[in-house]
Amino acid sequence: MIVDCAQYREGRRAQDAPLSVDAAAALCTLDEGFVWMGIVDPAPDELEHVKERFGLHELAVEDAQNFHLRPKIEKYDDDIYFVVLRTAQDDLELDRLVFGEVSMFIGPRFVITVRQGTASDLHPARLRLERRPELLAEGPISVLWAVLDQIVDDYAPVVEGLERDIEQIEASVFSGESAPTERIYKLRREATDFYRAVHPLLGPLNALENGAYPEIGRGLRQYFRDVNDHAKLVNEEVLAQRDLLATILQANMAVITVEQNDVVRKISGWAAIVAVPTFIASLYGMNFEHMPETDWKYGYVFVVALMIAIGAALYAFLRRINWL
Amino acid sequence: MIVDCAQYREGRRAQDAPLSVDAAAALCTLDEGFVWMGIVDPAPDELEHVKERFGLHELAVEDAQNFHLRPKIEKYDDDIYFVVLRTAQDDLELDRLVFGEVSMFIGPRFVITVRQGTASDLHPARLRLERRPELLAEGPISVLWAVLDQIVDDYAPVVEGLERDIEQIEASVFSGESAPTERIYKLRREATDFYRAVHPLLGPLNALENGAYPEIGRGLRQYFRDVNDHAKLVNEEVLAQRDLLATILQANMAVITVEQNDVVRKISGWAAIVAVPTFIASLYGMNFEHMPETDWKYGYVFVVALMIAIGAALYAFLRRINWL
Amino acid sequence: MIVDCAQYREGRRAQDAPLSVDAAAALCTLDEGFVWMGIVDPAPDELEHVKERFGLHELAVEDAQNFHLRPKIEKYDDDIYFVVLRTAQDDLELDRLVFGEVSMFIGPRFVITVRQGTASDLHPARLRLERRPELLAEGPISVLWAVLDQIVDDYAPVVEGLERDIEQIEASVFSGESAPTERIYKLRREATDFYRAVHPLLGPLNALENGAYPEIGRGLRQYFRDVNDHAKLVNEEVLAQRDLLATILQANMAVITVEQNDVVRKISGWAAIVAVPTFIASLYGMNFEHMPETDWKYGYVFVVALMIAIGAALYAFLRRINWL
Amino acid sequence: MIVDCAQYREGRRAQDAPLSVDAAAALCTLDEGFVWMGIVDPAPDELEHVKERFGLHELAVEDAQNFHLRPKIEKYDDDIYFVVLRTAQDDLELDRLVFGEVSMFIGPRFVITVRQGTASDLHPARLRLERRPELLAEGPISVLWAVLDQIVDDYAPVVEGLERDIEQIEASVFSGESAPTERIYKLRREATDFYRAVHPLLGPLNALENGAYPEIGRGLRQYFRDVNDHAKLVNEEVLAQRDLLATILQANMAVITVEQNDVVRKISGWAAIVAVPTFIASLYGMNFEHMPETDWKYGYVFVVALMIAIGAALYAFLRRINWL
Amino acid sequence: MIVDCAQYREGRRAQDAPLSVDAAAALCTLDEGFVWMGIVDPAPDELEHVKERFGLHELAVEDAQNFHLRPKIEKYDDDIYFVVLRTAQDDLELDRLVFGEVSMFIGPRFVITVRQGTASDLHPARLRLERRPELLAEGPISVLWAVLDQIVDDYAPVVEGLERDIEQIEASVFSGESAPTERIYKLRREATDFYRAVHPLLGPLNALENGAYPEIGRGLRQYFRDVNDHAKLVNEEVLAQRDLLATILQANMAVITVEQNDVVRKISGWAAIVAVPTFIASLYGMNFEHMPETDWKYGYVFVVALMIAIGAALYAFLRRINWL
Repeated sequence: MIVDCAQYREGRRAQDAPLSVDAAAALCTLDEGFVWMGIVDPAPDELEHVKERFGLHELAVEDAQNFHLRPKIEKYDDDIYFVVLRTAQDDLELDRLVFGEVSMFIGPRFVITVRQGTASDLHPARLRLERRPELLAEGPISVLWAVLDQIVDDYAPVVEGLERDIEQIEASVFSGESAPTERIYKLRREATDFYRAVHPLLGPLNALENGAYPEIGRGLRQYFRDVNDHAKLVNEEVLAQRDLLATILQANMAVITVEQNDVVRKISGWAAIVAVPTFIASLYGMNFEHMPETDWKYGYVFVVALMIAIGAALYAFLRRINWL
Repeated sequence: MIVDCAQYREGRRAQDAPLSVDAAAALCTLDEGFVWMGIVDPAPDELEHVKERFGLHELAVEDAQNFHLRPKIEKYDDDIYFVVLRTAQDDLELDRLVFGEVSMFIGPRFVITVRQGTASDLHPARLRLERRPELLAEGPISVLWAVLDQIVDDYAPVVEGLERDIEQIEASVFSGESAPTERIYKLRREATDFYRAVHPLLGPLNALENGAYPEIGRGLRQYFRDVNDHAKLVNEEVLAQRDLLATILQANMAVITVEQNDVVRKISGWAAIVAVPTFIASLYGMNFEHMPETDWKYGYVFVVALMIAIGAALYAFLRRINWL
Repeated sequence: MIVDCAQYREGRRAQDAPLSVDAAAALCTLDEGFVWMGIVDPAPDELEHVKERFGLHELAVEDAQNFHLRPKIEKYDDDIYFVVLRTAQDDLELDRLVFGEVSMFIGPRFVITVRQGTASDLHPARLRLERRPELLAEGPISVLWAVLDQIVDDYAPVVEGLERDIEQIEASVFSGESAPTERIYKLRREATDFYRAVHPLLGPLNALENGAYPEIGRGLRQYFRDVNDHAKLVNEEVLAQRDLLATILQANMAVITVEQNDVVRKISGWAAIVAVPTFIASLYGMNFEHMPETDWKYGYVFVVALMIAIGAALYAFLRRINWL
Repeated sequence: MIVDCAQYREGRRAQDAPLSVDAAAALCTLDEGFVWMGIVDPAPDELEHVKERFGLHELAVEDAQNFHLRPKIEKYDDDIYFVVLRTAQDDLELDRLVFGEVSMFIGPRFVITVRQGTASDLHPARLRLERRPELLAEGPISVLWAVLDQIVDDYAPVVEGLERDIEQIEASVFSGESAPTERIYKLRREATDFYRAVHPLLGPLNALENGAYPEIGRGLRQYFRDVNDHAKLVNEEVLAQRDLLATILQANMAVITVEQNDVVRKISGWAAIVAVPTFIASLYGMNFEHMPETDWKYGYVFVVALMIAIGAALYAFLRRINWL
Repeated sequence: MIVDCAQYREGRRAQDAPLSVDAAAALCTLDEGFVWMGIVDPAPDELEHVKERFGLHELAVEDAQNFHLRPKIEKYDDDIYFVVLRTAQDDLELDRLVFGEVSMFIGPRFVITVRQGTASDLHPARLRLERRPELLAEGPISVLWAVLDQIVDDYAPVVEGLERDIEQIEASVFSGESAPTERIYKLRREATDFYRAVHPLLGPLNALENGAYPEIGRGLRQYFRDVNDHAKLVNEEVLAQRDLLATILQANMAVITVEQNDVVRKISGWAAIVAVPTFIASLYGMNFEHMPETDWKYGYVFVVALMIAIGAALYAFLRRINWL
């Protein structure tokens, strides 16, 4: 579905209402401005139509229809860039990360953005860019910046969400109230998925920053460097989080084992407190003819008192050595 | 065994019936088109015959007869490429991965593909290529693309199978119903084997994409880039799976230990519930002359009631602290 | 808040009193000397004012206002360097590392340093540089050296603090007195945070040392090499500390388990010492008519003596095999 | 000890009987053919003599006398290559890997091979090369290929031996019959030693393949590429084996712990089956006057039956929850 | 303290008695030979004096006074090399590694070596070099070789010491007599410290070997390659040792846990042997009127025999399943 389509000339939007595919393709033949068409979850024939009108490469169109790709920035021979980006979002309801994909075709006179899955809405990027005519005037490549900038900015809350989850897990591990092994594992899996969305982007972003594509002017390149900086920061943060989660898994194990030690000590302590009086009781349960104590008047009271004294002494001793 | 052999001229298959080795070799001397010969599990003398007629290098022929090689793309001095690829398949009956090998000799006027082991059938690649005359017209190198494309596409179900297995293992680990250590290990071993089939291919595929071989036109190169993209994706997925499996192994360990804690607590709890009444019983088993309770009429009933009360109180307490 | 601002000409400070922003900007238009303005925790409009007067790039100003960035050294087209540095300090009260940020704008005629968070005071760097006119005479880039030098020097006590903490943890782990899993984990997290402050700086420092920026004379470059050396040393030390902490976590686990073994043995030993006499007691509690020993005069004394003897023998034996 | 020495001219061996050092050195001054001298475990003065007659570099001769070196291929200024290779063999008697060393001096007119320790016999390499005059005719460098080829081929059985050992360990770990920690460790150590024999060879082999030494013709280079391929394969296999062994060590740990859980459960189960009847027995051991059951005629039979019933019920229950 | 100082001309020592600083500095202005001054633990003012007379760079002198630096080889603009090396020694008394530092200033006409801490004595290097006039004649840079050679040679006994320690630890872990966790950890820490002394040296040594410094003639370069070879070997050995020690730590853990299993089984076995007879005893301690066995004449003997039989049977059974 085409959600918006407009021509931009001299840094300004030329039409308010969205253009049709054919009208847009016609405008692309002019030697002026460029068209930005935004498509969401396209039907195959829709994309086929766009492909024919804009002369897109079949491999790129195939990729734009697929899902679960690596982020990449490629240039085709006919000077058309094909870009795949992965968006990430913290789905608060499902309490897990959801990923989406944005594909872009960037020709000399057009930009086609294709959103798939739960990809971030690109409308804010369009509005932001429209407010900056000096960047828009740099041509279609400025749209690449606007989209990259938004997607990478949208990574920040994901990193923060992971950070929050890690802090909760730390608290839970070290308070000893529960051993959140499953949660640590799931979070590590999410961090890995997220890392795979971010990391492959760094290579192409470096290429953009370092001027591998001469179409991109020096002024715009500083904006790509800015995006690259943010992506590198996100990448380093996720790497550190993965490392932390691996360490927590080990710390968790140590905490569980220490707790086991405590449990075993506590159990044994109480067992001792019961076992010694039981022994004394069975002692006086023996059927010997000549057991002087059994004939004493206060023998029973004395023995019970002895049991209580021994139990109390053991309890005090075990407390002192921290077994209870 | 030669399973198919035909000459391709101007993007079309020239003969319907398979050619003999000698006829094929003769056609190769012409300055037009190329021959594609498909061999499966060749006998040594069969390969020797092909080697002589097509002038293949002894080292390449030796490799094509061997098994368990690294994937590679080599160029011999006489402009003959020698390619080794590893195919992977999920053998559902054996419930494990099986690997096969495809060797290719690519000369200016011929392509010889040699399948070994449980290598994927290359017939679909041939049919697909025959339906695309514009690629066939690029010469023998287009066959390299067709074969690479099919083999790398065939990796996808393997990755999905590993993914499914990992999800089953996750469920099994965290449900605590069993500790699938052996299965985790076996899967990690498979993932490593698969990684070794895929990873060494990336270097040569990058070389193909980046134009290290000038015979490959720019148009075709975009098709190799597409294959490279898929191979990189598979590679990243397998790497992530290996990492996950290592983490599961650790998580599994933590889950086992937590379960051990639970078992120890449960056992100790029941032991306490039995031990305290046992102590009371042995108390009243003592043979003192003067034990007032033993003379009471309801002494016995009272003591049994006391035991039940203490047992119940212990049970309630242990439930509350989650030991039972 | 502007904390100091002065022009430096021919290696000397030109004014004693701090300049205003406008005065400083005016002096920058002269073809002589440079201005160094120090700002601490700037208000947004303050920075906006500076930006307009000194013609700073919007992206750089945005970064200078943000927090939690990667250290970096960038050059903008208009020959203005933008530098982000992370400072680290051991907060003895909170007993944890605190990080601050210093951003620098370095133009041909000015240096603006912006401190944020608990960043180190830069006044000592200014004083040190003022005492070295021959370096000051190299222009604004000498300020970059002075600030880098101070910040990297300030890393040293942090490394030493981590080292001290590690030694305490080692002592505590191997004395067995407590299992400081949480402390190991927290320290490893700190070391990771610190590593992330230091590591990204190495790339730009190498570029400075190797002459990537021709503005920096050969003489000054040796001073940057010196800073780079120190940063590399800090980086290697932190890496080694992270590795050590991971190893301690494992060693800790082994120590805990050995201790568990000891506990289990000790408990079982005492259990045996109690269980055997208890068995003997219950033996003589049997109600057989014909139990000769029960009729002996010293039967009881003999049996109690037997119990003590067996208990003592068991105790001696268990001591000998180190179970008690 | 010189084991063989002959001159090769136009691809053929010139003398049947081994030459003396002096005769060989004299032949090296001619402008034709080359001499191949094979030495085994040389005495220092023997090597000194060879050094003087062939003008070898003192550092190279020193290395040829030492043991436990890194594999390397060096070129000295006087166009003499010095090569150190490590051979590996599975000593079936000692059931461990033994390593040997082969040093080579390769000049324009001579090759001197020095075997040390349990290095592979090089005679087969000589015979194989003598059967290929076209390679021999390429000069002394063809001997480097022949020796490299044999040594790298001899790595294959070592890899297979490690593989067999790993499979045995896997079977042993997962059958639970024993915990082969020591064997896993020893094997990992061997794999590491072997890796260190193979890995440093890859760099020089790559240099040989990529034409870093112009003396080596393009035809011969394909033979070095073949050796390189095999070495890379061995290297990847050993790396994968090391990784597997690390994983087995962890899996082993998990299996041991699961087994521990089983043991604890089994013990506790039987303890319960004994403890409950013991409690009942002590109940009826109490000395109350009024215990109606004790007066019943079949009280005893009933209680014993109750004990058996409870024991059986517990047994059935524990079986059902897999504790027994 | 200056320990030796002499001028070397045409490969020979010119004076027998040590020169003073001023005399040495004067000789450096001549266009012939070079001066080698050896200083040990210099006082600050001593170094200040040397710095002024030889025109050393302040940064280099600062580094030479510091301790705990990274090994490095730097060149200052005035053609003076500054070298920092770390020496390592096995202190047999303290049973740990001690590190020292050697700094070198190498100008066109002088070499100043500064030893600090427990750095190796450099006198042997001087004597060895004096015996090789042809190397001495290459100028001051030959001293760099002689010092590097000695220091790297001195690493060998350290590696061997670590190897011996590892073998002792292996024996101790697998004999099960003790769990040397602390010793493993301490050794790993030492190996890491040693690695940090050796590893940073490889980069500069490679640069020396590959001719990055044109002052070094091709002949001498082969000597630096020799040192580089040894350093690379040491580096690989230490890396392998660190890896081994990490594996031992894990193997240690597995051995401890297996031992724990054994202990638990042994304890439970003996508990069973005591528990069953105890149950029988309490059975016959019941106070039922009608317990036929209690009236039998040999009831008591029979029951005791039964207990012994059951105990023996249990013992035999538990031995057979390896629990005792």
